Amino acid sequence: MTARHEEIADELRRAIDREQYTVGGRLPSESELAAHYGVSRGTVRQAVAALTAEGLIGSRQGARRVVLASRRSQSFEELRSFAQWARAMGREATGHVVEQSYRPATHEDAARLQLPLRTPVLHVLRLRGLDGDPVLLERTVYADWISPAVESIDPDCPSVTQRLYDETGLVFAYGEHIIDAVACGARDAGLLRVRRTSPLLRVRRVTTTREGRPVEWSDDRYRPDAVTFSVHNSIGNNALSRKTAD
Amino acid sequence: MTARHEEIADELRRAIDREQYTVGGRLPSESELAAHYGVSRGTVRQAVAALTAEGLIGSRQGARRVVLASRRSQSFEELRSFAQWARAMGREATGHVVEQSYRPATHEDAARLQLPLRTPVLHVLRLRGLDGDPVLLERTVYADWISPAVESIDPDCPSVTQRLYDETGLVFAYGEHIIDAVACGARDAGLLRVRRTSPLLRVRRVTTTREGRPVEWSDDRYRPDAVTFSVHNSIGNNALSRKTAD
Repeated sequence: MTARHEEIADELRRAIDREQYTVGGRLPSESELAAHYGVSRGTVRQAVAALTAEGLIGSRQGARRVVLASRRSQSFEELRSFAQWARAMGREATGHVVEQSYRPATHEDAARLQLPLRTPVLHVLRLRGLDGDPVLLERTVYADWISPAVESIDPDCPSVTQRLYDETGLVFAYGEHIIDAVACGARDAGLLRVRRTSPLLRVRRVTTTREGRPVEWSDDRYRPDAVTFSVHNSIGNNALSRKTAD
Repeated sequence: MTARHEEIADELRRAIDREQYTVGGRLPSESELAAHYGVSRGTVRQAVAALTAEGLIGSRQGARRVVLASRRSQSFEELRSFAQWARAMGREATGHVVEQSYRPATHEDAARLQLPLRTPVLHVLRLRGLDGDPVLLERTVYADWISPAVESIDPDCPSVTQRLYDETGLVFAYGEHIIDAVACGARDAGLLRVRRTSPLLRVRRVTTTREGRPVEWSDDRYRPDAVTFSVHNSIGNNALSRKTAD
């Protein structure tokens, strides 16, 4: 049998998930919650303690508790994999390789992927869509040691991440994202079906293995009418930085 | 007297700070570090353990350690305050209030600031510059309870954050940032000295107190040739989410 405070903790988690209580907002007071669930304040306190331990709500005593996070915040994998992200939202991801070729690593490729200059690396230009609409152009360069596995993947495969994991056991573990805005070029305008010079949200990223070995680096350009990025931060945990452009 | 392993830990921290070892890259092996500093591997291990505990380098044994973070990553305050950020980079921040007025809270203001509809709130349009060049237009709406303190600040004050802290003890503690790209409108183009329809990096944010009470919400538009944002994330700690646009 589940204890009553565990049931209440679970109901509160679900209420946060469905945004009945939103991040930055407050839970009802202990006495309001006690009245609502028909339990003692001690039982409410036990439920609230569980959510506090999980980092879902603030730990400040006395006052009404603040909702700090929702379990819906994305996993790293969901962020990295366009297909996994789309699936989590109940949307259909499409992926189409526009072109793919080996080229000798440039200085930029070599620096980002920690490879010798002119190592042959695989360049892939992919057009990604949501429910049939083009929303993202990904220009990805893969390290030489993973390139053959990527090359053998079907051009229309929706999830390269999943396929690489299934075939090679590769796990992406760290990422650095640089976000800015650029004007859409003529070729990209045709592929993304927007006007030339439209603003695009650009995300340049390097992803590494658990050991910190770079696997890929990518220049991703999103239609901002379709996709945005959000960052949650706090005094205790800030992963977002403002930088001067190079 | 400082122990030798503490000195070496400090030298490694400084080497990471000045990007001799970059995030995602590797430290030399224990034996290389031991030879370099003329100490035993045991001493190197003590130094490395300190940096591991601080989260600066990876904890995987045996192999060369991966640099996970730099102490240069920005504090929450440095992210929130344009002036503090500029100062940390050795640049001069300028701030100029273009216009400022009380308006009744719209539905959007009321929802974001958790206030009753039509509460009078202070709207401020500020032009921010780096070393004299305009780089950011901030459209900020302040909650009614902080508006009088903001209103009394000198229009050219470089750091509103600092002034509010000095005068009211207010500490900003949580933030939610939504990042996308927009085309520059005619008025903004004049103020930012860019062409109309140029891509701008837009950051919409809500900042709250430690108790989760919203203080301000802002629509910030940056010249992407001057400023970018970066996010560091990992399997264990991901604050970045991709969202479908509304």
